[in-house]
Amino acid sequence: MTQQTKKQTQEQTIKVGVIGAGGRMGRMLIEAVQENSQTILTAAIERQGSSLVGADAGEVAAIGHLEVQIVDDLKAVIHDIDVLIDFSLPDATEKNMQVCAANDVAMVIGTTGFNEQQEQVLKTASEQIAIVYAGNYSTGVNLSLKLLGMAAKAFGDDADVEVIEAHHKHKIDAPSGTAYMMAEAVAGARGQRLKDVAVYGREGQTGEREAGSIGIHAIRGGEIIGDHTVMFIADGEVVEITHRARARMTFAAGAIRAATWVIEQSAGQYDMQDVLGLNE
Amino acid sequence: MTQQTKKQTQEQTIKVGVIGAGGRMGRMLIEAVQENSQTILTAAIERQGSSLVGADAGEVAAIGHLEVQIVDDLKAVIHDIDVLIDFSLPDATEKNMQVCAANDVAMVIGTTGFNEQQEQVLKTASEQIAIVYAGNYSTGVNLSLKLLGMAAKAFGDDADVEVIEAHHKHKIDAPSGTAYMMAEAVAGARGQRLKDVAVYGREGQTGEREAGSIGIHAIRGGEIIGDHTVMFIADGEVVEITHRARARMTFAAGAIRAATWVIEQSAGQYDMQDVLGLNE
Amino acid sequence: MTQQTKKQTQEQTIKVGVIGAGGRMGRMLIEAVQENSQTILTAAIERQGSSLVGADAGEVAAIGHLEVQIVDDLKAVIHDIDVLIDFSLPDATEKNMQVCAANDVAMVIGTTGFNEQQEQVLKTASEQIAIVYAGNYSTGVNLSLKLLGMAAKAFGDDADVEVIEAHHKHKIDAPSGTAYMMAEAVAGARGQRLKDVAVYGREGQTGEREAGSIGIHAIRGGEIIGDHTVMFIADGEVVEITHRARARMTFAAGAIRAATWVIEQSAGQYDMQDVLGLNE
Amino acid sequence: MTQQTKKQTQEQTIKVGVIGAGGRMGRMLIEAVQENSQTILTAAIERQGSSLVGADAGEVAAIGHLEVQIVDDLKAVIHDIDVLIDFSLPDATEKNMQVCAANDVAMVIGTTGFNEQQEQVLKTASEQIAIVYAGNYSTGVNLSLKLLGMAAKAFGDDADVEVIEAHHKHKIDAPSGTAYMMAEAVAGARGQRLKDVAVYGREGQTGEREAGSIGIHAIRGGEIIGDHTVMFIADGEVVEITHRARARMTFAAGAIRAATWVIEQSAGQYDMQDVLGLNE
Repeated sequence: MTQQTKKQTQEQTIKVGVIGAGGRMGRMLIEAVQENSQTILTAAIERQGSSLVGADAGEVAAIGHLEVQIVDDLKAVIHDIDVLIDFSLPDATEKNMQVCAANDVAMVIGTTGFNEQQEQVLKTASEQIAIVYAGNYSTGVNLSLKLLGMAAKAFGDDADVEVIEAHHKHKIDAPSGTAYMMAEAVAGARGQRLKDVAVYGREGQTGEREAGSIGIHAIRGGEIIGDHTVMFIADGEVVEITHRARARMTFAAGAIRAATWVIEQSAGQYDMQDVLGLNE
Repeated sequence: MTQQTKKQTQEQTIKVGVIGAGGRMGRMLIEAVQENSQTILTAAIERQGSSLVGADAGEVAAIGHLEVQIVDDLKAVIHDIDVLIDFSLPDATEKNMQVCAANDVAMVIGTTGFNEQQEQVLKTASEQIAIVYAGNYSTGVNLSLKLLGMAAKAFGDDADVEVIEAHHKHKIDAPSGTAYMMAEAVAGARGQRLKDVAVYGREGQTGEREAGSIGIHAIRGGEIIGDHTVMFIADGEVVEITHRARARMTFAAGAIRAATWVIEQSAGQYDMQDVLGLNE
Repeated sequence: MTQQTKKQTQEQTIKVGVIGAGGRMGRMLIEAVQENSQTILTAAIERQGSSLVGADAGEVAAIGHLEVQIVDDLKAVIHDIDVLIDFSLPDATEKNMQVCAANDVAMVIGTTGFNEQQEQVLKTASEQIAIVYAGNYSTGVNLSLKLLGMAAKAFGDDADVEVIEAHHKHKIDAPSGTAYMMAEAVAGARGQRLKDVAVYGREGQTGEREAGSIGIHAIRGGEIIGDHTVMFIADGEVVEITHRARARMTFAAGAIRAATWVIEQSAGQYDMQDVLGLNE
Repeated sequence: MTQQTKKQTQEQTIKVGVIGAGGRMGRMLIEAVQENSQTILTAAIERQGSSLVGADAGEVAAIGHLEVQIVDDLKAVIHDIDVLIDFSLPDATEKNMQVCAANDVAMVIGTTGFNEQQEQVLKTASEQIAIVYAGNYSTGVNLSLKLLGMAAKAFGDDADVEVIEAHHKHKIDAPSGTAYMMAEAVAGARGQRLKDVAVYGREGQTGEREAGSIGIHAIRGGEIIGDHTVMFIADGEVVEITHRARARMTFAAGAIRAATWVIEQSAGQYDMQDVLGLNE
């Protein structure tokens, strides 16, 4: 759908503003807004002093002219927005939440690292407007976390759990944040604390596997974007849940999906599992 | 736990009767009863005229003498039983349900192929006693079916679904019953009828993949007991749910797990997803 | 390594010319030439009449200015080239082979669809110069084909073979050409003709698996670039050989690897398995 | 094929003797001899003093009466044997090699832990008779080791290698011996020493992956007999070689295959890769 076609049906489409329009995530968000047939970019915001202020948001995102000029003041464009998508920094997001709450604009927030005061602003704002707030907007990752909890409960003590993740050779830490989230989903469902049961690597005279432990293995190589497998190994059967990220764009697409969902909700704070209907 | 030890703590253990004690499934059920620390075999029933009537059930199952003689009349041993496990034929199970209902004995039923009248007997009996009735008692398969429904709902139209199953070279039909159940779990969650969307094999000028279709692929070879993978292939990410059966014994173990659960329930009809806590 | 640095060490680096510099494959080849530390782009050729003649080859490939102007006559630049890479059309490649043979320039050819006369030109040219001629330049695919032949011989009749390939939803035919090549590598090693033993999909009352048959399954979904798995399923063990293409760029990189190898060879015709040392 | 039928065609079948007939491996070897259509059990030997001497070898192996009485002296039956299979202890095998060499009987040896003197006896014996001597008789494992060496050479520095093995929860050491053999096959082909490049587990701030390293990961759970995967992860493609053991019987079947092969060879020492034709 072209910008032109979208504009013509603008009454039905959802008007989206993007914070940090010139950053790497911002550009992907803009591309994803334009790819989704239900949404249209109507505002693009950058920090004061950015050299991109005044440039066309579509050209910055390398997807062609969109007639949306990047501005440095959210308030100047707030009336053109149905939903604001904000993957930026805590201080900026704090102010943006206040602007949105005052103007009845829904939000999709991917910013991490809120302090207590910012958590409080989030809570207050979500009494006025609908806000989706999540650390990971991938449909597959959020789905997997939900499935892992259910699998852990169904198997109980009958299955040994092992987590295997694979990432590119440039990654400097291990295991991945997603692998931790997955292992915690299992541990939590079994009433364990992950740090008490996690085992990283096995070598030498290890003895028999300790009941209730969770093995976590980090594979590194090439340019793998991110694969995760969790194995539930019972004596006579094995269940595996695997997630493979093939393109980073999928996280931006999830945020747009959240934007099309949040517009229909009453005030409150939601997460990606709500968006996906996994908490019903 | 030996039979001797179990008998000493018999007040706490669950007394189990097994129908069809001399059949292949019956023998595995007897072995599984004895392997589970919460259950003990107290009755073993065969059809009238079987040459195994009078033999020791443990010796027939090749797990050592159990001091449980195989009998040909359920009524003769019904007072020794807390739960009756019945994987036999519809006509036999129909009579057994009536005996159990009259004597307040819970049931775990794996018999398939009930006619309408037998379905009615099941319904009536389950007003008196707790009955678990399921076509497949594997924890992993039942869990997988539940997860597949959730995944199908979460992805909606955003993922292409493909089912791949693998079985031994002797299997004479395809796809497997479990593969059909899995594909139906997906189709049902998406509001489709499987027969409208199933695609079996692709060769030649197929054209682009039809949106909403479900590919089903049957691998055959060696002595594979039964592997199933369902792929949810979105543009930027893939989720796979895999079940591998490593030993047929796992189905018997699931029935014993159902027996330890059903004993605590009030009258009603339940399935394996209830046993596993997946319907909460 | 920058173009500048490469130019300074130009005596040691291999000077590469690329045919079809403005096409999709040509652009990837140019990028791959520049990424490889042993090679440098010194000539870029397009067909007569192309609007890109005169443009900078690096800018066309979107990797920055390279000071290599696209020309429309191979002869004009043949003295600047150590190796010519040609992924174009049979008629063009036929003429290019004659120019290279006359000027003692080695070649890497990825053009397909030669007629008999063109095959003869290839034969004659390879008496003068070293030519690598292959249908697929991926290291992994060529390696896999070699491994499959060895596995088929080692298992003989003891293993059932199944091929599973997965590609994006837009692919309009099935199975993939690579899947056919893999199945043929197995059939050939076992003295079979593929068309006599190939089975595409299984549904209904299939009967037991026919000994010696090769199952081929085509999965379609999302944006999968191309995965292939061949299973050798013996009664007590299974060997799987899997190839996953993660980026189309890998085929261009393989051609550059061939270029760095062919420069050291005496006149003759070679394939990618020669380049990889798999035929020793 | 029944023992009766085999006896009738005894001129064509290979007469096999098994050392340690009453042990766990010996019983599997006897079963495998009888399952192979080319071989027949003609002698079964146990150590002096074993209570099984005098018993029928088939009954001890639980495959029915074979009319082969277990004896305690190899010399007493050496004239009934074409090939002797010996999976026992070094001291016993040392004597058996001398008896076979003196009587021109071929051997398949699976005994491990020879000292220098025993290695010398092996060398001397193999000047008289054909001997297959291997640490692992699985077709799949030997094939995989060969393939891994070829893959390592083909990829050279272009791929990162990771080994993942999975075994049952009772295994008390890690990684498995087979995982070490696989990692060494890769390291050797690349001119590395495994101990210099092996990485066991990754946790915390690991930094980027070190070029040339080999990650080795040990998964533990349930009753997994033994799975091994080696990944060659290049930037744009991945090749995986996987071996799954489904039944321990496969190792015995490999030894029988070696017996049918060694009978055709001239004097010399061979390994399982020779038997499989992988060294041609």
